[in-house]
Formats: sequence, C-alpha cells, structure tokens
Amino acid sequence: MKKIYKAHILYTKEQNRFEVLENGYIVVEDGCVVDISTDLSALKCSDAEVTDFGNRLLIPAMNDLHVHAPQYRNQGIAMDLELLPWLQNYTFPEEMKYADTAYAERMYRRFVRDLWRFGTMRASVFATIHTESTRLLMHLFQEAGMGALVGKVGMDACCPPKLRESVEEMVKGYESLIMDDGQPTGNHQFPPLVQPIITPRFIPSCTPEMLRACGQLAAKYHLPVQSHLSENKDEIALVRELEPNSTCYGDAYNQYGLFGQTPTVMAHCVWTEGEELELMKRNGVVVAHCPTSNFNVASGMAPIRRFLDEGLHVGLGSDISGGHDLSIFQVMVYAIQVSKMYYQQNHECPFLTLSEAFWLATKSAGSFFGHVGSFEPGYEFDALVIDDSDLNHDNYTLLERLERYIYLGDDRQIVHRFCRGNEIAEPEVS
Amino acid sequence: MKKIYKAHILYTKEQNRFEVLENGYIVVEDGCVVDISTDLSALKCSDAEVTDFGNRLLIPAMNDLHVHAPQYRNQGIAMDLELLPWLQNYTFPEEMKYADTAYAERMYRRFVRDLWRFGTMRASVFATIHTESTRLLMHLFQEAGMGALVGKVGMDACCPPKLRESVEEMVKGYESLIMDDGQPTGNHQFPPLVQPIITPRFIPSCTPEMLRACGQLAAKYHLPVQSHLSENKDEIALVRELEPNSTCYGDAYNQYGLFGQTPTVMAHCVWTEGEELELMKRNGVVVAHCPTSNFNVASGMAPIRRFLDEGLHVGLGSDISGGHDLSIFQVMVYAIQVSKMYYQQNHECPFLTLSEAFWLATKSAGSFFGHVGSFEPGYEFDALVIDDSDLNHDNYTLLERLERYIYLGDDRQIVHRFCRGNEIAEPEVS
Repeated sequence: MKKIYKAHILYTKEQNRFEVLENGYIVVEDGCVVDISTDLSALKCSDAEVTDFGNRLLIPAMNDLHVHAPQYRNQGIAMDLELLPWLQNYTFPEEMKYADTAYAERMYRRFVRDLWRFGTMRASVFATIHTESTRLLMHLFQEAGMGALVGKVGMDACCPPKLRESVEEMVKGYESLIMDDGQPTGNHQFPPLVQPIITPRFIPSCTPEMLRACGQLAAKYHLPVQSHLSENKDEIALVRELEPNSTCYGDAYNQYGLFGQTPTVMAHCVWTEGEELELMKRNGVVVAHCPTSNFNVASGMAPIRRFLDEGLHVGLGSDISGGHDLSIFQVMVYAIQVSKMYYQQNHECPFLTLSEAFWLATKSAGSFFGHVGSFEPGYEFDALVIDDSDLNHDNYTLLERLERYIYLGDDRQIVHRFCRGNEIAEPEVS
Repeated sequence: MKKIYKAHILYTKEQNRFEVLENGYIVVEDGCVVDISTDLSALKCSDAEVTDFGNRLLIPAMNDLHVHAPQYRNQGIAMDLELLPWLQNYTFPEEMKYADTAYAERMYRRFVRDLWRFGTMRASVFATIHTESTRLLMHLFQEAGMGALVGKVGMDACCPPKLRESVEEMVKGYESLIMDDGQPTGNHQFPPLVQPIITPRFIPSCTPEMLRACGQLAAKYHLPVQSHLSENKDEIALVRELEPNSTCYGDAYNQYGLFGQTPTVMAHCVWTEGEELELMKRNGVVVAHCPTSNFNVASGMAPIRRFLDEGLHVGLGSDISGGHDLSIFQVMVYAIQVSKMYYQQNHECPFLTLSEAFWLATKSAGSFFGHVGSFEPGYEFDALVIDDSDLNHDNYTLLERLERYIYLGDDRQIVHRFCRGNEIAEPEVS
C-alpha cells in the first residue's frame, strides 16, 4: 500500500545541513520511504493517494537513546539532592515498586503515552530487575506500535537487597523475555519493533559474574547492550578500584563482552577521553548524550564536538529522571547549550549547530534502531507533523519555523505521529 | 473590599525554606495581603467571602527583571549565531521596525499576552529608542493591569544610524513619557503599576554625553535605571578602552550616576568580581541573572552563590531573545542548573536549592517593584493559581507538586493570575 504525504519537509541527511523541501512530497510503502521530491510528477508511484498536510512541517520522529522508565514517577522532583541521597531515597525505593505489575502497568502506560506525546517513536529503555514488569513494558510498546529496546536491569551489588537478583535468575528472566520476543504483525522485512536489550546497570552495581553473564547473553542471542559510562569522576575512581585489571572504565565493560561486541550504547561519557575514546571508536560504541541530566546531576559537560570530530556515533537521551524533560526537542536545546558552555571554556571546540543537534536526535540516534531517523529512500517512515501556526506571529522561513518549534514548542504542536509507516494513535492509560 | 482565597499556599519568606500552608487562607484587601493562616477562624476579617481553589496551588506570581520586548519576534531563532552577526542581522534590523507603531502594536500585544500566559505579572523591560512605540507598550501594560518598568532605550553609538537618537531627542522623548505616566485607577496607595525606567543600552552603545544625560534624568525624576553589565569578556575589554578613567565596568556607570544612585538593575554580571562586586554591594545594585541567555550566547556562568553570600540582591530575567524562554519557571530551572555546573567546577560554591531559585524569582526580584513577591502581610497580592492535576499520576507532597510544576509544567496549568489584588484577564492581541 503506497501513500504520499505532502508538507514542508525538513530532515538532516548530513550532519552539517538541513534538507528543506518546501511543499515536498514523500512516498511511503510498506513502512519505508520510497521517494522524496518537491516535484510530484517526478516521483516513483506518483499515482498514489496524496495526504496533504498543508502548511505544516513534516520531520523525522525523535529517538531517545537513554531513559529509565521506572523513574518516570520521580521526574522533576528531588532535583536539588546530591547523587547518593537521590539514589537511596528516591530512585531505589521507586524501582522496588515494580515488583508489583499492577503498579508497573499504571506507571508504564503513562510513560509510553508521554513518549508518544513528545514525538519519541523509538527509545532505548532501562526497566527494572523485574522480569514480568519488563515484559509488560515491552507489550505496551508493541500495543502502541512504537519502537523500543527494553532492558531488564542486571544488578546484584551495591544496592538494596530487594533490587538484587542472582545471576541465574537474571539469565532465566532474560531468556523468557527473549523467547517471548517477536513481531505481532508477522512482517519479517524488519527486525522486531520491540526487543530486549542487555542492561547491566553499571559496573559498580554488578558482580563480575553478573557482567560476564550479561556479555554471554548478548553474544548468544545477538542482542544489543546498554549501560552507563564515565558519568562522574567519583564513579570512575570507584570502577578503577573494582576492576583493577582494566585500563579504563570502558575497558572493564569490554573485558566482559559488553562494549561493542554487539551494538552497544553507553549513556553519558562525560569524562571519556584517551584510551576509552579510542576503544569506543574501534568498537563502534554509541554515546547517549544526556545534557539535561548532566546539568541536573552536576556531572560535567560532555565533549561532544570532540566525539563528532573523532567519528564516534552519538545520539541524545532524556535520562529521566536524572534528566527532567522527556522531550528530545528540549534535549536538543540543552545539547546546543552545553556545547556553547564547553566552547566558552575551550575555544578550539566549536559549539553544535542546529542541524547537528537535529541530526544527533534523528539520523545519528536512529541508526541504533536500524534505518531510522532520515527520509532518504530505504529509511523507515518515522515522522512527526508539526502544526506550528500558534508560534508564528510573523513571517518566518521554514528553517526558522523549525528552530522556533524546537526552542518554543511542545506536545501541543505535534498533530500526527508515524512509526514504521503507521500513524500512531494516543496510547491508552489506565 | 476584602477577599479570602483558599488553596494550598506556597511561598518563600526566606531564601532557605518554603512556607507551606496546606489548605491555607489568604486575606486580601485593597490589593494587599492582610493575613495568612491555615486557621480560618484565627484570621483578621474571617467573615469575608471565601473563594476556594480546592486542591490547587497558590503561589506568588513571577517577576522578570530583564527582557527585551522588541526582540520577541526573534525568540528561538538564529540561536547558533555568534553575538555580532546575531546583533547585526537579527536584533538591530528588528528593532528598527519599531519606528512603525502599527508593527509595534501587533508585536507588543503578543508580548504582553505571553508574559501573562507564563504568569509574569511584573517585568523590567527594554523597548527601543522609539518614544511612541514605548508609550504604546506602557499603555498595553496599563490596559492589561500588569506591572512594568518600561525603558525607552538610549543609544547613540556603535549601531545602525536608524537606531541612534541625539541626546536632546532622547531627553525630550523620555520627558514626554514621564509626563504621560500616571495611574489609571487614581489609587495613590501604590506607586504606578507602569513606569518609565532609564535605559542606556550599555556603555559601548552610548556616548559619554548620552550616559551623562541618562544619569541626570534618573536623578531629576527619581527614576530607576537598567542596563547590561559584564556579560562577556570582549565587552569588558571594550569598556575598559572606552572608559579609561573608570576602575571597572560598573564604575563607568557609577561615574554617570547610573549605578545605584536610584534603584538600579544590571543584567548578566557573569564576570563581576572584586571591585565591581563591592561597588554593587555598596550601592545596592540589583543583579538580573539570565541563565538561559548566558547559555545561548555562550557568555559564561554567573557566580550567583558568591553574589548571595555577599548579600547582593539578585533576581531572574528571561532576556528574550538572548534567552529563548519567556517562562520564569524555566529560568528557575536553568538558574539551578548553571549553579550546579558552577559547583561542579568550583566545589566551594554550593548549588542553588529549589527554595533559593523560587525566592530569587519571587521575593528577591519582586523587591525591585515594591512589596512584591511574597505573601507576608503588607505585600501586594501578585499570585498564580496552579492546577497541576494533569502532572500528578501518583501521590506527591505539596513541595514535590510545586517542584514538578516548575520542572514539567507550562502555561496550561496556570488557571488564575492576580496582580496587585486584581484578577488579570487574558490581554487581547490584534
């Protein structure tokens, strides 16, 4: 079934510039972009039905490379605590509640609905150690038709006993999620929209046995991996103590097969440099840059320009609830701002441009989910239609309109959302 | 006419803690708070009519200590330009348009309406050099019933010819605004809600004659003063060249009678230290901290903790369009974040707590407008009623609810706005 959508189309094929199609057309078939042009007659399949979005903007949907679903209740509270009391008094007690799948369902439904609200169609998500709540979260994404890599968290050290799981239980739980995994539509053109991702919380929360088992699971089932890396200096010093045979924090993951042996995303990387950076480059490890979180938790400023210059893959993450804002548009704004503050202190590192921030959130982050985040032919059609008329009290260019939407807009202006070619309706909450 | 409002009341009498009145009552008479308590029978005038806001939050309204009204059109665009091309290509061309009062009316109406939307009931505003557009802006604030100090900008150097005005024209224009000034209600208990404020743009845009005339106008008419101070290092070096007889940037203003001789607010103060800081302290000069702008323009991080420790008066400013967000709630979030990043780099300067950020935006900033920003008896009743029910998918304490509103909320949750005791209706746009 072919469809043509008409609108003002903006996307970033390359990091340094926007593609801008005023009154452009995009042909979608079987969930993928087939052709794109401002000339209807030049299109492949120009005879398909045209849906005209008029003066609205059509852009790729957002991708969130790092978010903790069970911390959604704590979004925007206790933001002036230090890391340790915050974990002990807010994060861990909240995660314990997810032993109860009824509580999990109430919260996770709202979480998925709000990802939808802010136009995030793909996310790499931390759940908790609880297998059944994690399974539920996967089902909610499937039900919504939105893409997600969902991680049952591996954790057996340095945390309350109720948040520990033995290595055997962890493996058994994961394998039951993997068996459960599959694509409801039966369409095998794509990988499943929703898949498990191996998720050791971070080195200090895991015994060597837990880390080894995680690496083995990833290898055995060809599953991606996510965790946290080099977020703050105390954490790095602690990892150095815990893993004396590793040359750096990243190397500790690497020794357990958790650093690029399968597709891997590491959140933060605020203090990544030298050997760790080289290892990430060599292994193709992706950075989930979480600037709101880095501000809120006083971690520091990640050297994103350096990462881009070195050719590392980088995407953006909301990191709820270290981050306070689920909107990846707002995370883009912060990514530019943190790069400006970094530039102010290191003039050899130019700050991010708008096209770079947009590319990070779309094509660059989307690559972790497949051919996602661009409108080039062959890409999955993940898209948002933005009605920004209420933001425009004067004449603006299309690029200015997009920039104003990113800086000033919110969920009110997103009027249609597509994931893998399907229009996604508002997920139900209970 | 006495009125009693019932709601969950939160405000900051002191910097370090919130006053929280669950199901509290506040008595308002002639625009001012008369009494406040959780015990209706203990109140003065407990026989007055009670308006019950139920489960909603009642908080002081927001104050914006630094905002450029004619840059409202440029909000959220050209955010990845450097300062100079941004001024030359966006700011100055836009300000020129305000020679046309019809254009000014269209834009200024939207500006005032949007201050209203985000709950800002008092603002210290830069207009342009144009007397008639500035008069119009003052009238729009009066019509709305919102408080404002409105500055016709003094500028006769380093800018396009169309944005220069001779000293004589500036003085004549200002005096015509001063004569026009007055209070429509005829109530003389208070100073006028809307007043002119003497506004030399900043030292580099003014000849010594212009600065001298500004100082003389402020002294002659007992008018407050606003300008920019020590925003970035190049600017400071330029001022040192332009004013070789001054000991610091602040001292240059001081020599012209523009640094605390009448109530004075200076925007930014990112690099203020040493002698300048001492002079501000001695002269009671207020800091308008504009963290969103300081990020967007890559100015640096203002040492707000130091200012507070030294006893300086500090408030918050949106600084549209260097800042991108008109909501002072969002500026609070950024103020905390920039203080955290400052703390991360200077561990002897603890970051701002939520109560401190709230106090900066309410009682501390409000003091520039009179007894504004608190609910202590004698304070003008400037208030917002927040219906945050859509933000609460679980049980939260009242303080957590306020924090969630600040971090996650927007104009949708503000359901009533009061300024000087009057409920303020949505200002009309044309």
